[in-house]
Amino acid sequence: MSREAVHDHIDRHIPEHIDRIREYVRQPSVSQTGEGIREGVELLAQYYRDLGCAEVEIVETDGHPGIFAYYDAGAPRTIVNYAMYDVQPADPAEWTHPPFEATIAPAGPHPKAVYGRGAWFTKGPYRAFLNALESIIAVEGTLPVNIYFIAEGEEEIASPHFAQIAERYRDRLRQADAALTLGGAQDASGRVSMFLGNKGFVYFDLVSAADGKGHGPVGAAVHDSLQGIVGTPAWRLAGALSTLVDGRSGEVLIEGFTEKVRSLSDADEALLVKLREQLSTGDFSRGFPNLGGEGRIDSFADGLSDIDALRRYTAAPTFNLNGVRGGYTGPGTVNFAVPTELIATIDCRLVPDMEPEEFLTKLRAHLDRHGYQDIEIRTHSEYTWAKTDPDDDVVRACLRAYQDMGADVLVWPSKGTSGAWWVLNRLLGLPTVKEGGLGHGGGFHAPDEYFVLESDGSVAGLAECEKSHVDILYSFGNYPNEY
Amino acid sequence: MSREAVHDHIDRHIPEHIDRIREYVRQPSVSQTGEGIREGVELLAQYYRDLGCAEVEIVETDGHPGIFAYYDAGAPRTIVNYAMYDVQPADPAEWTHPPFEATIAPAGPHPKAVYGRGAWFTKGPYRAFLNALESIIAVEGTLPVNIYFIAEGEEEIASPHFAQIAERYRDRLRQADAALTLGGAQDASGRVSMFLGNKGFVYFDLVSAADGKGHGPVGAAVHDSLQGIVGTPAWRLAGALSTLVDGRSGEVLIEGFTEKVRSLSDADEALLVKLREQLSTGDFSRGFPNLGGEGRIDSFADGLSDIDALRRYTAAPTFNLNGVRGGYTGPGTVNFAVPTELIATIDCRLVPDMEPEEFLTKLRAHLDRHGYQDIEIRTHSEYTWAKTDPDDDVVRACLRAYQDMGADVLVWPSKGTSGAWWVLNRLLGLPTVKEGGLGHGGGFHAPDEYFVLESDGSVAGLAECEKSHVDILYSFGNYPNEY
Repeated sequence: MSREAVHDHIDRHIPEHIDRIREYVRQPSVSQTGEGIREGVELLAQYYRDLGCAEVEIVETDGHPGIFAYYDAGAPRTIVNYAMYDVQPADPAEWTHPPFEATIAPAGPHPKAVYGRGAWFTKGPYRAFLNALESIIAVEGTLPVNIYFIAEGEEEIASPHFAQIAERYRDRLRQADAALTLGGAQDASGRVSMFLGNKGFVYFDLVSAADGKGHGPVGAAVHDSLQGIVGTPAWRLAGALSTLVDGRSGEVLIEGFTEKVRSLSDADEALLVKLREQLSTGDFSRGFPNLGGEGRIDSFADGLSDIDALRRYTAAPTFNLNGVRGGYTGPGTVNFAVPTELIATIDCRLVPDMEPEEFLTKLRAHLDRHGYQDIEIRTHSEYTWAKTDPDDDVVRACLRAYQDMGADVLVWPSKGTSGAWWVLNRLLGLPTVKEGGLGHGGGFHAPDEYFVLESDGSVAGLAECEKSHVDILYSFGNYPNEY
Repeated sequence: MSREAVHDHIDRHIPEHIDRIREYVRQPSVSQTGEGIREGVELLAQYYRDLGCAEVEIVETDGHPGIFAYYDAGAPRTIVNYAMYDVQPADPAEWTHPPFEATIAPAGPHPKAVYGRGAWFTKGPYRAFLNALESIIAVEGTLPVNIYFIAEGEEEIASPHFAQIAERYRDRLRQADAALTLGGAQDASGRVSMFLGNKGFVYFDLVSAADGKGHGPVGAAVHDSLQGIVGTPAWRLAGALSTLVDGRSGEVLIEGFTEKVRSLSDADEALLVKLREQLSTGDFSRGFPNLGGEGRIDSFADGLSDIDALRRYTAAPTFNLNGVRGGYTGPGTVNFAVPTELIATIDCRLVPDMEPEEFLTKLRAHLDRHGYQDIEIRTHSEYTWAKTDPDDDVVRACLRAYQDMGADVLVWPSKGTSGAWWVLNRLLGLPTVKEGGLGHGGGFHAPDEYFVLESDGSVAGLAECEKSHVDILYSFGNYPNEY
């Protein structure tokens, strides 16, 4: 059986595979500063050439360049594979293992890991995926699917030009059957999380500023003893905010805010029922994504039951007062002044079928209607949601492969976070599996980021990670037939 | 005439008077850090002994010590004279003239000034006052009034123990006829401002914190994607604030907030009419106290007329949203989190007959009534107002002296700021003149603070400053008789 031969090939070439991972991690490519970006994109393009892609193009944008590449396997099915080659900045002073040396060392219970900025997010797992592809080609001469590769170098700065890259190749990319990205999706216990969507996002400031006409001082803050005669923009912001959300019930009061919210399908509801069962085996609320830090949920809002918490997390919009700034923000009795402006930062996660522009139009109309025409909406970022049907072939093919591997999988109808995946799912119209594969790491956006190469058995090591990529590709390439 | 002999004495002893000022300025006495506090209080106590006070006591408190001293002149009238011997911290790196060297140098148009921390607020003018007293005693053998001296070393940290000091000598101090403090009250144009009161003050935080019961994350902030299921304390703060002030009209909505506000007397109203005339000769709104910085008032709140702006500044409470903190307070798209708490800092200036405790009781009741029992009121400082009748002898005596000096005087029924003067005015029950005398300086609470010794003629130099103190004391000592 050809998959077994590929697995054997992987086992025999792990040292070389580790070398390629270390090579990629050693190359800085920091999108915030631009450090190593050009060398980073050249290196990834070279990887696609090494693979045997007939087309490899570096795509210039208004920001950092992207890549378009195509591997024609002559296969019946085609995927779009997304990659990011950029990483977060890293301050070497905070790292035990220097961020761009790809040091090999143990990590927690695991005997062997590679350390470095991007080792986990996403260079280690992505280079493992390329290692898997090379292994398949070495054994089979080609791949079980055709692959469009599309890469960006700005994921860590909110993907401002990813849609621009995808649009240039839109007509070809839309021909694919699915978007599928494989890396390492295991948590520390070895469980895999699979997300069939994510939420739209609008991040904006509401600004109440002095107008020189009786609402606050002009030029700079003035002494608070003058507040009665100079007026203030500060209370206007509090008033405006209170029209948006009922402070007592927490209900969002923007007219029509939820009118476009789509109910979950029966298939998605069934996923939630299964999720509840799976999460009930542990500390239920700790099972939600993005809850790995010190903050915890002792009790759900509004007395939500477990299943309702899952439903709200998955299928309801959020409207979060992220912070307020302006005036004096230090502690204690220090400053007495009327501020010139007060700014609230709000982020809002949108679900199908809410759209950012429509939301912003409703927000503006709401503020105007309530007498706050002067409150400025300053939008920082906005993108829409993504959603894939759990009955789509790419989802079923992934789940079949996981089942055959014996992996425990949590399937979420949607993640509560947001990202540029809407480009694949909505702009290109492709069913999308965001994160797939076995594999584990740590230090996401933090010092001493690592990717596990040899594990204690609780999670996959590098060989198992690459084999899982192989199996998922074969499963989808042949679905619904045997693979 | 004896006053003339005293004036002559002052003119002949200016070099020695400057030496005493420099000695006092050179002595650090920083209440925030404690630096030089003990030496500072000893030096001031020695000054009172040098003057010939029969009683001089250093008064220990729970904080920095104060001083009680008494000079018995055998005069019919007695004043309480307030002093502070502490100063703000000074970072020498920010100063051209080192803060504790009392350098003599020009200042703007003025040929001679003394520089140093406290040179202007208040060591220079206060030592000038003591020089004036010494000159009177040198010529006359005694003073025209008996004087209780009461000093604190914590003015710059909000006078937490001044009432404690005054209470220890309360029975004796209450016997005085007035509280009178003389320094230098001239602005850059030479005009004197006289304030017949100040406002009460409450400075507090309103805290909305996660409760572990559905209002926000416990332990630390969590990712904003979880907002819907973790709840948030942030919108509760906005809601609570909006019940306090109407965001559109700016009206304070706390039940009974203004019910105790006393109308201005006819005499105070007459002062406002005169003030309007005087301020109309320049940029009207720049004539308000504490408006010397970059911030300006282009238009009064609520379309107030000039006289109404004066009335509101003088006789209406303020309710200022000083700042809000919590959550992410930096610019741009960086953080996505549900904060564990949000804090609003509010300061409120109270007028006769509002009292801090009563205000806080009303505020608590208001929040409770509106469903915000969980919002904590965290009070940082509170003190009450002071108010002196413009027809009181001490006021008339001051005004007579100013008139005889040819000084242009703005008489304010009250200043919009607050201070520990309630101790003299309310605890001791004394008519109080807060700031009197000719003299000018700059750099209040800033680097290169200075006190003018020789002027360009627009303001008083040191000799004129001391002479104005002499004249005011004689005027009050003999009032309503000639002096």
